[in-house]
Amino acid sequence: MIPGPTPVPESALIEMAKHPMAHRSKEFSNILKEVYEDLKYVFQTKNDIFLFTASGTGAMCAALENIVNEGDKVLCLVIGNFGARWAKIAESRGAEVIKLEVPLGEVIKPQMLEEALNKNKDIKIVTLTHSETSTGAANDVKTLCSIIKKHGALSVVDGITSLCAMEFKTDEWNIDVALSGSQKGFMIAPGLSFLTASEEAFKMHEQCKYPSFYFNWKEHKKSLAKDTTPFTPAVSLISSLHTSLKMIKEEGIENVNKRHKKLSLALRAAIKTIGLKLFVEDDNNASYAITSILPPEGITVPDIRKTLKDDYDIIVANGQGSLENKIFRIGTLGFVCERDLIMAVGALEASLIKLGYKFEVGSGVKKLIEELNK
Amino acid sequence: MIPGPTPVPESALIEMAKHPMAHRSKEFSNILKEVYEDLKYVFQTKNDIFLFTASGTGAMCAALENIVNEGDKVLCLVIGNFGARWAKIAESRGAEVIKLEVPLGEVIKPQMLEEALNKNKDIKIVTLTHSETSTGAANDVKTLCSIIKKHGALSVVDGITSLCAMEFKTDEWNIDVALSGSQKGFMIAPGLSFLTASEEAFKMHEQCKYPSFYFNWKEHKKSLAKDTTPFTPAVSLISSLHTSLKMIKEEGIENVNKRHKKLSLALRAAIKTIGLKLFVEDDNNASYAITSILPPEGITVPDIRKTLKDDYDIIVANGQGSLENKIFRIGTLGFVCERDLIMAVGALEASLIKLGYKFEVGSGVKKLIEELNK
Repeated sequence: MIPGPTPVPESALIEMAKHPMAHRSKEFSNILKEVYEDLKYVFQTKNDIFLFTASGTGAMCAALENIVNEGDKVLCLVIGNFGARWAKIAESRGAEVIKLEVPLGEVIKPQMLEEALNKNKDIKIVTLTHSETSTGAANDVKTLCSIIKKHGALSVVDGITSLCAMEFKTDEWNIDVALSGSQKGFMIAPGLSFLTASEEAFKMHEQCKYPSFYFNWKEHKKSLAKDTTPFTPAVSLISSLHTSLKMIKEEGIENVNKRHKKLSLALRAAIKTIGLKLFVEDDNNASYAITSILPPEGITVPDIRKTLKDDYDIIVANGQGSLENKIFRIGTLGFVCERDLIMAVGALEASLIKLGYKFEVGSGVKKLIEELNK
Repeated sequence: MIPGPTPVPESALIEMAKHPMAHRSKEFSNILKEVYEDLKYVFQTKNDIFLFTASGTGAMCAALENIVNEGDKVLCLVIGNFGARWAKIAESRGAEVIKLEVPLGEVIKPQMLEEALNKNKDIKIVTLTHSETSTGAANDVKTLCSIIKKHGALSVVDGITSLCAMEFKTDEWNIDVALSGSQKGFMIAPGLSFLTASEEAFKMHEQCKYPSFYFNWKEHKKSLAKDTTPFTPAVSLISSLHTSLKMIKEEGIENVNKRHKKLSLALRAAIKTIGLKLFVEDDNNASYAITSILPPEGITVPDIRKTLKDDYDIIVANGQGSLENKIFRIGTLGFVCERDLIMAVGALEASLIKLGYKFEVGSGVKKLIEELNK
């Protein structure tokens, strides 16, 4: 129950075990063609989606390394570790970075963004994180990107854990560059990432003095038009993705979004019922991909994680950085259903009792079931 | 029978079908630790090996994007498409590139390199390809790197198709930066690549103004010391590699090298026996990973490829770029044994007869067997 790698459906796993296809074969091109189309459906965009053999961070580099020139002003909206990563990538290309930060667990308010943009009229690019995996908070991408658009800057959105888990409308929300990774809502193993860029973003790309070679947008666009990739891709992962995308299409992206929202909000209600505190208090600021929880007084995060692992074979994530051992995080992302959550909340209750926490045992599962049956 | 993706042993394929492991778990760290060690064995180096979730071209970027500054003089030894790729990557970082080129099918002679280095005393980096997959020729890396070292420049060697197939001694041969990819001699699916850098290379890295973020050497070194990776890696591919590396160690890298040499030279002898021409005429300049062959008069490359594919389910590669339809290429790389080659040569003979080529049928297989039994 971690926020990635997430569970992989059997049909997608089996694709991985097949002999790697010749990457320049007609058979593989046919798969790639469908994958490119299905990714557009998930991203809800009419623009091309580029497919990189790389982790999600690779796609983040692919975003900035195609548009940033030395000295460019980049505004980074930081609500946690992954927001801070944007700033590091921009700096690695010589950008002048301005950080807009909030305390961990909180999100960027529209008015803060307005002020920052008004103060720095020459900001070229604004980076933001949709679902911040390190805290479990989620920015209101729709509102923030409309503000960015109004100010004439380019929006670059990390949707690594949010795609599929949360509503994400690239074109309708005026997102210029959007990206995600394979081992999250896409339900396959890590190793692939995806990026789409608007016409405006491509115009900025044309002005980039030293665009990335490996992640080069123009080269990827050229290859894509011929149903291929510029370099040998991770063919096994792409075949696996081909299968999982069909599952997403069959369920329907709106239904996939709704399932995540329902599971996540039910989990939050259950956690509150057993008396534990949520790190992101307001449901409106919560990611539907991951829920961060504070341990009860006198019980440590390592104790909870160890009991869940040893006695119930369930892994939940620790906090990252300054949040290590302060919170634990439960992922409800990808190939996850009600059964999994009943198991997780039940096992959490069982662990807490063993660790000496006093509460009404069963009340979390009861609340969870009530919420799921609504 | 293409030069990658190459056949994957069943034990390595099965690892791919397992549920992706949590990348920060102790279990996965243990696997990673062994993989890092076993890669050092294959590269024959005492230095760290960095593991990237990326194609081989990603590792090529990882080589230059950690050492090249704008305006640096880089000498690129070009004997084919992959040698030319080095020049493009260097240029993408603003380097001043000098190309030393030879006609396709030939290799760089030591004296040519000496002259080029003498003419340009301020060359900082020299890039070269060991086994040039596009032509089937192989540079004498040992001799060339000793010359580069003598001149005080840094050598950067693409070993993507050569590692395992050919003798490759990173430390003994004074190679500063060496790299390879997973879907070649390492016998797994594409999606991972590897790089090692000498102390001298690291010194140059320290002077790099805008080193790559995703492929950053220092960050990879830091993570490696903790048996982890800076970003979520392709865990399934790493588990698969863990298995294939054990097979390589069991066979012994010297024996793996010998097997490739024997298969490749036997194939060359068989091809000559049936009267076809080898694109790389001199055995001393031939790659043991891939053999480029000219079709006989009046028969086209597409005809040969189509017959092999349709009637015998065997894929051989076409030529690339200006060599398209002029040569076809047979890979003898990775998980390939005598049986495979007997099949390939037999099927090639059968195809040629069908296509109307006149020769002594069976003579190729006979010669092959004689050579293999020597």
